[in-house]
Amino acid sequence: MSIYVVGHQNPDTDSICAAVTLANLKQELGEDVEAIRCGKVNAETEFILDKFNIEAPKLVEKLNKGDEVFLVDHNEASQAIAGLEEAELTGVVDHHRIGGLETSGPIYFRNETVGCTSTIITKMYKENNVEITDEMAGLLLSAILSDTVIFRSPTCTEEDKEIANELASQLGLDVEEYGKELFKAGSVVNVLSAKE
Amino acid sequence: MSIYVVGHQNPDTDSICAAVTLANLKQELGEDVEAIRCGKVNAETEFILDKFNIEAPKLVEKLNKGDEVFLVDHNEASQAIAGLEEAELTGVVDHHRIGGLETSGPIYFRNETVGCTSTIITKMYKENNVEITDEMAGLLLSAILSDTVIFRSPTCTEEDKEIANELASQLGLDVEEYGKELFKAGSVVNVLSAKE
Ligand SMILES: [Mn+2]
Ligand SMILES: [Mn+2]
Ligand SMILES: [Mn+2]
Ligand SMILES: [Mn+2]
Repeated sequence: MSIYVVGHQNPDTDSICAAVTLANLKQELGEDVEAIRCGKVNAETEFILDKFNIEAPKLVEKLNKGDEVFLVDHNEASQAIAGLEEAELTGVVDHHRIGGLETSGPIYFRNETVGCTSTIITKMYKENNVEITDEMAGLLLSAILSDTVIFRSPTCTEEDKEIANELASQLGLDVEEYGKELFKAGSVVNVLSAKE
Repeated sequence: MSIYVVGHQNPDTDSICAAVTLANLKQELGEDVEAIRCGKVNAETEFILDKFNIEAPKLVEKLNKGDEVFLVDHNEASQAIAGLEEAELTGVVDHHRIGGLETSGPIYFRNETVGCTSTIITKMYKENNVEITDEMAGLLLSAILSDTVIFRSPTCTEEDKEIANELASQLGLDVEEYGKELFKAGSVVNVLSAKE
């Protein structure tokens, strides 16, 4: 059975896009993996998936005994998909504080002090010499702009900016303009609620 | 003040060699770091340091408040230098199980399922395009041969072998022959004790 790649509960754009792109990278490298999500896709992420013509990953609410799982965009058990303690954890790619995770054996664990998991995944494509398709570039760019609030968050680094600018230039997108479009799409629900 | 790079308590060859080489790499990259150790250098490691003409890192038994520290070859607080809880942890490079570490903010944390920390550090030299001097190659090779018991341990991977063979060829050393010399040097104390 495939190894699941999954972001945190109550997924934001980075959790969905990092799962989809890391699964894509691993598939290109010949691994049997599948991106999943453990919660609802928010309005911003829905806009992004539509724009780049990618289906939302399958919803899995709880892992079962024997499932293998790779976590992205979180490393704390309390934020993870239900049933994690029953499953076999095979890896983590994240950019948050280290949160007390314990495993019985060694696993791949990569945490970097950058603004977005998708920045690290873009580096992983490059390290493995795997071409980033426009669809995947779109998801990676969107996640970086979302997590760093278009480079304005205190967690944003030069590396996030460089990588986002490279991805934007591959896609012929203007970072500021597209970023604002993204945040507008994400706030539709709030705007509508406010109007009611 | 320098950031300390340190292996686990009761240091083995990997803990000493990974600290020295990672500090060297970081210095080459312009970072202000210093390799230290928190315990006695064993006979095997002493032989290696002599052979490659490298001084043992400074002994620091306890960290003080305000010290910055980077851990190699372990990630569990229970195995770490005394005073870790007072210090500021800035990073980890390791190859063991994930052992419940918690930090207040994000840090660099790189754990891979290979046989030796020094294998990962060799990769880091390459990723950063920093030349590995013969002295550093000697320490890296020695740590890999020590941790993998000359490629015989169940944790040894193809990556460990490839990297060790590259380092050995840089140094003109035969892996089996040098590995046996290493283990013989490490067992001198035991042999002597047994004779008594
Ligand atoms: Mn997130
Ligand atoms: Mn994130
Ligand atoms: Mn060790
Ligand atoms: Mn080791």
